[in-house]
Amino acid sequence: MKKTLLFFHLLFIAAVACAEDGYTLWLRYNKVDDQVLLQQYRSKINSIQFTGNSLTLAVAKKEMLNGLEGLLAIPIADKKTISDRSIVTGTPLTSTFIRSFLSEGNFDLGKEGFVISTKKTDQKNIIIIAANSDVGVLYGVFQLLRLLQTHQSIEKLSIVSIPKIQNRVLDHWDNLNRTVERGYAGASIWNWHLLPGYIDKRYIDYARANASIGINGTVLTNVNANAMVLTKPYLEKVAALANVFRPYGIKVYLTARFSAPMEIGGLKTADPLDAEVQNWWKQKCDEIYSYIPDFGGFVIKANSEGQPGPQNYGRTHADGANMFADALAPHHGIVMWRAFVYDARVQKSTENFGEGKADPSAPSIASSDRAKQAYDEFKPLDGKFRKNVLVQVKNGPVDFQPREPFSPLFGAMQHTPLIIEFQLTQEYLGQATTLVYEAPLFKECLDADTYSKARLNDTVGQGKGSTVAKVIDGSLENYPATAIAGVANIGNERNWTGHPFGQANWYAFGRLAWDHALSSEQIAEEWLRQTFSNDQHFVIGTKKIMMMSRETMVNYMTPLGLHHIMGTGFHYGPAPWVDNAGRADWNPVYYHRADSAGIGFDRTVTGSNAISQYAEEVRKQWEDVKTCDEKYLLWFHHVSWNYKMKSGRTLWNELCYKYYSGVDSVRWMQHTWNGLKKYIDEERFEQVKMLLAIQEKEAVWWRNACLLYFQTWSKMPIPASYEKPDHDLQYYKALKFPYAPGNGGNL
Amino acid sequence: MKKTLLFFHLLFIAAVACAEDGYTLWLRYNKVDDQVLLQQYRSKINSIQFTGNSLTLAVAKKEMLNGLEGLLAIPIADKKTISDRSIVTGTPLTSTFIRSFLSEGNFDLGKEGFVISTKKTDQKNIIIIAANSDVGVLYGVFQLLRLLQTHQSIEKLSIVSIPKIQNRVLDHWDNLNRTVERGYAGASIWNWHLLPGYIDKRYIDYARANASIGINGTVLTNVNANAMVLTKPYLEKVAALANVFRPYGIKVYLTARFSAPMEIGGLKTADPLDAEVQNWWKQKCDEIYSYIPDFGGFVIKANSEGQPGPQNYGRTHADGANMFADALAPHHGIVMWRAFVYDARVQKSTENFGEGKADPSAPSIASSDRAKQAYDEFKPLDGKFRKNVLVQVKNGPVDFQPREPFSPLFGAMQHTPLIIEFQLTQEYLGQATTLVYEAPLFKECLDADTYSKARLNDTVGQGKGSTVAKVIDGSLENYPATAIAGVANIGNERNWTGHPFGQANWYAFGRLAWDHALSSEQIAEEWLRQTFSNDQHFVIGTKKIMMMSRETMVNYMTPLGLHHIMGTGFHYGPAPWVDNAGRADWNPVYYHRADSAGIGFDRTVTGSNAISQYAEEVRKQWEDVKTCDEKYLLWFHHVSWNYKMKSGRTLWNELCYKYYSGVDSVRWMQHTWNGLKKYIDEERFEQVKMLLAIQEKEAVWWRNACLLYFQTWSKMPIPASYEKPDHDLQYYKALKFPYAPGNGGNL
Repeated sequence: MKKTLLFFHLLFIAAVACAEDGYTLWLRYNKVDDQVLLQQYRSKINSIQFTGNSLTLAVAKKEMLNGLEGLLAIPIADKKTISDRSIVTGTPLTSTFIRSFLSEGNFDLGKEGFVISTKKTDQKNIIIIAANSDVGVLYGVFQLLRLLQTHQSIEKLSIVSIPKIQNRVLDHWDNLNRTVERGYAGASIWNWHLLPGYIDKRYIDYARANASIGINGTVLTNVNANAMVLTKPYLEKVAALANVFRPYGIKVYLTARFSAPMEIGGLKTADPLDAEVQNWWKQKCDEIYSYIPDFGGFVIKANSEGQPGPQNYGRTHADGANMFADALAPHHGIVMWRAFVYDARVQKSTENFGEGKADPSAPSIASSDRAKQAYDEFKPLDGKFRKNVLVQVKNGPVDFQPREPFSPLFGAMQHTPLIIEFQLTQEYLGQATTLVYEAPLFKECLDADTYSKARLNDTVGQGKGSTVAKVIDGSLENYPATAIAGVANIGNERNWTGHPFGQANWYAFGRLAWDHALSSEQIAEEWLRQTFSNDQHFVIGTKKIMMMSRETMVNYMTPLGLHHIMGTGFHYGPAPWVDNAGRADWNPVYYHRADSAGIGFDRTVTGSNAISQYAEEVRKQWEDVKTCDEKYLLWFHHVSWNYKMKSGRTLWNELCYKYYSGVDSVRWMQHTWNGLKKYIDEERFEQVKMLLAIQEKEAVWWRNACLLYFQTWSKMPIPASYEKPDHDLQYYKALKFPYAPGNGGNL
Repeated sequence: MKKTLLFFHLLFIAAVACAEDGYTLWLRYNKVDDQVLLQQYRSKINSIQFTGNSLTLAVAKKEMLNGLEGLLAIPIADKKTISDRSIVTGTPLTSTFIRSFLSEGNFDLGKEGFVISTKKTDQKNIIIIAANSDVGVLYGVFQLLRLLQTHQSIEKLSIVSIPKIQNRVLDHWDNLNRTVERGYAGASIWNWHLLPGYIDKRYIDYARANASIGINGTVLTNVNANAMVLTKPYLEKVAALANVFRPYGIKVYLTARFSAPMEIGGLKTADPLDAEVQNWWKQKCDEIYSYIPDFGGFVIKANSEGQPGPQNYGRTHADGANMFADALAPHHGIVMWRAFVYDARVQKSTENFGEGKADPSAPSIASSDRAKQAYDEFKPLDGKFRKNVLVQVKNGPVDFQPREPFSPLFGAMQHTPLIIEFQLTQEYLGQATTLVYEAPLFKECLDADTYSKARLNDTVGQGKGSTVAKVIDGSLENYPATAIAGVANIGNERNWTGHPFGQANWYAFGRLAWDHALSSEQIAEEWLRQTFSNDQHFVIGTKKIMMMSRETMVNYMTPLGLHHIMGTGFHYGPAPWVDNAGRADWNPVYYHRADSAGIGFDRTVTGSNAISQYAEEVRKQWEDVKTCDEKYLLWFHHVSWNYKMKSGRTLWNELCYKYYSGVDSVRWMQHTWNGLKKYIDEERFEQVKMLLAIQEKEAVWWRNACLLYFQTWSKMPIPASYEKPDHDLQYYKALKFPYAPGNGGNL
């Protein structure tokens, strides 16, 4: 009786002990709550046998012990020899047993892959985690823990996993003053002031989280770069972070400010063909590598949005990139040169916004359509970059909109390795308050077929099957270096991402960077099970919410191919009426081109002809208004308000339908979430509930503001069956949010 | 056997469950780890009997249950009737039993006081928590939990506790963009963008922490105020916070920008004697109270450091304050009018800095010494303020320096209630990286005797015993309103204050605001036991560190009465050489006045005569260089380098001694802390260890930079027995920290 009471007390303590504040992300190792499964797991695992003693293997072992002891709620023995019910780990270098195992299996694991396998050896049932490298073991450890976290069977394991892309990188747009450009989760996690002396535990947990999903690089600083990070005091700070991340297989990168030789080097020029400048960068790289021997390289934003670059000196992007490449090459560093270019020196006119108007003093190429500029500037440079240069291309040709077609550059640079850049932080996707699961957006782009004239073995000369994913992972062209980048959505809020579901986008990015063949649904399910609960009702319901969330947002923000109609500067909320921004292509009216005749940007041959940047097969899908996928309709065509859509509705009525159905979907998401209350902790349930209520208000705001504004052109009524907007257009136009986050020092 | 194993497993879970990340502050309810005591506690408490059902009593009950179940690790029954081993709580309104108990005991508890008492009634042993108000019960609940947290006996309880000061307020210098002026713990915890829809759990835990130490007011916004917080969208956000805080007895205050009638009201003037302006503020107050019926009032910084104020219109501080007072009076709000004034319109000259040089166009009073200005401006206004105006005075006459004598205003305003303002955030006390326990600083000021001609019953006409504390708590003058303010050191870092020991200053401020008779040691011990461990070795060792920490910092920063010799702008690090700041009294050289003859600011009759602002008895303590307490020596006197100190050393050698002993003390603190590793969690142990290592470096920096600079005047050697500075003065002068936190958007 007394013992039973004590039992109860102990259970009680375990239950009340920890708040579900989201800090642990998907690395929750709570006891498996399915009793049958728990017994099964315990019958298979009661110890580990870990060989090797590198820093990486030490953290892998610690993670393994911590994870197993949490999940199985039993002490896990640390064995010196192989025993029954043991997890046996190692590499050919650390273990003869593993060496034999790998060589017998003839596994092709590369540098980072791993195998997880159940095996009976000498009457002992064991689970093997083997890899060629220590970090491969670490990845295998996280994968095994994920199996337990997500309640998978471990009866017969035979998993071989190899990353498809080499460099899987998070880009932080974090400033040295701890503000985060387009950050919606508090301050930067990098506390530069306290580095190198103070190592925040967050740095370690950041590395754990990234390693658990295979992310192996981090760009610490904003692409709008500050040269100071390249000075000695900051390199010491960067080195301290690199030391934390190294055991987790994560390399550190920095953004290089093109004009740094002038700003911190005292030179009179930053001309990339100037020998003194080249030498300065060589010496700077030597210095960096003296602090960080495995430094990854530079990310560079040049001649874009006012950033300095080679065009300031009449040089090309290739000239600029190659200078950095030469300085980094002796140390095996790479250059990630961004193709997101639209130089502030062009299109200064705000009046003649239909036609990009070049500043006559600017030597750079001015496109008649901002969607064309990256291609216009980079296509001619294909093949002119050094081998350690990768050109970093945003998924779409404009700027991380809720929906864009893939960037035409992905089908156009056969001689240059390309990085795809996704944005995890939701600059244009509702920012801090919107539940939007981005994997479907990532996949839509990765799976898109560029029909580039690439040399797939089975389709020589035809191009079909030349998906963006195959361009990026190098399988089309056999590039020596491949990479993928995600702009981080991480800040110092307790749960890292502000919105609890922001974590899913970090997770999904990492998982797809490792294996872009994974489905959005599969990743959502994994994440939900690890992060919240394995309860079937919860997983099914919440997965539905996640899977519909991106289309829902597109519907109430920018349906049918609309884009870039958000508020100026902060990019918060709708503002399709704005026509007075600092340059033509910052104005929503530049993009939607609504007039009394219709709406949409004609990018066919009768308009900007941006469509000509795609392969013929791609053009054919979109160039005819009658056959164009309606999700891209207004991206490529200016369409009459009366145009009959596939639904039978007029364009105007279809627009109304989309906007209203977007709001309805948010309400459905709210309803569904409310029904799942009993399955998870109160803290996160309430957080999401409050955020969904805000999202519903914002969805109504988007819908009403956009339809009331477009109505001033269409002169058509919102169908009477819909709820009426509760404010007039003037009300929406008058709203001001000077302290919206993510811009100009606002947090 | 099986049961024993399960036992073990459960214990194991409980042990690994939660990280000690500091988020829970001193409200840790971990199981009592002294088995004897645990059994004693359990034998006295197994249930509660809670009467009443207000929101305040609901949170008190939840806290009580949560706390007891955590500490005692048993389920606590929630009884309807009084039972043996029950904690019986209530007020005269909620319980006839409590009504009888209070009336029999004839307790004088006021609005917020409480009594905790053991009692045997009808053969039942119970613990009573009784108060006149619901919030009194809440305070009693936290006090009882504190007894258990700190391992006190609860055998015979007879505690009566009443706060000595009515309004115990935290001032947040938080901006609407989530930066925090002089904040060193990340971003503001107020996420204005997500309010009112999203209630961060932090808001609730903030309220719990404050209520647990008796803080009952919070000023949400920076004294350098933004009028926008007074607009409708922000008042809705403020109201949401007020709703969270109300159950915890915490009122919300805002800072009022003096020019708001012009900036958001469209008026042409903000003249406090203009009827339209007065009316605007009356209406604004009516509006505020329509959102927040228990709004506390305004804090106003006017005609100080560029802030607008009544002097812009030729009016006095009293004219300004009274306008707000009249607008707030119908709602029972108060005005906290800051006396920290040094108008930017005076002392513009940087050359003639020995004499404050008034701008001829400025109507305000220009003092020849910044230390005099608050007195000069406010003393003449004594008695001219409305009854609901309190004048808020910083502890010292300059600005939150490591050591200042108390402000002379505390002895000079017999007809005006004064608030004392302390700074918990360590703007001048080493900021993010310094372990400094501020209670001794607070107490030094509170216990100082103003010898004001106040009417203490037993010392009529003599003034002795007129301590600052008695001025503030109103006992000298019987003011109807009393208040104390602390500038918060709170941000959104996981542990709230960045430095784990920053929490102690928040705690100490609250405890002293409740009862300024508590000793610094007593508060340190309470805090340590609740926050870290009850282990005697740990408590004794760490208490020593805390108790010496402030004097240590004074020694290596500003010994012997030196002050204001830190870096310009950021206030980070030493910069005694600065002589080119924007105005004379921003320059360190203005304050230390080192020259070839000596060092120090002559504030006696031969100098600025600031000493004349003190009562005669106080002046006598300080005006003679021979008898002046050496800790204030250079505050009041310009002293020859060869002056013989009480130690027998020359002033120069004494200065060297102090600076070197300060660094030695930091090293002693490091050594002591390292010896306490085994007593606490690794996470916080390592945090403090890393921070102490940074502090040691910074202490050496302060010592070397200051002595090398002062040496350029003294021309005397640093005694050979000391370690030599490892850099020269030029090195220290060249150091730049453009991203030091707490200033201009840096976090």
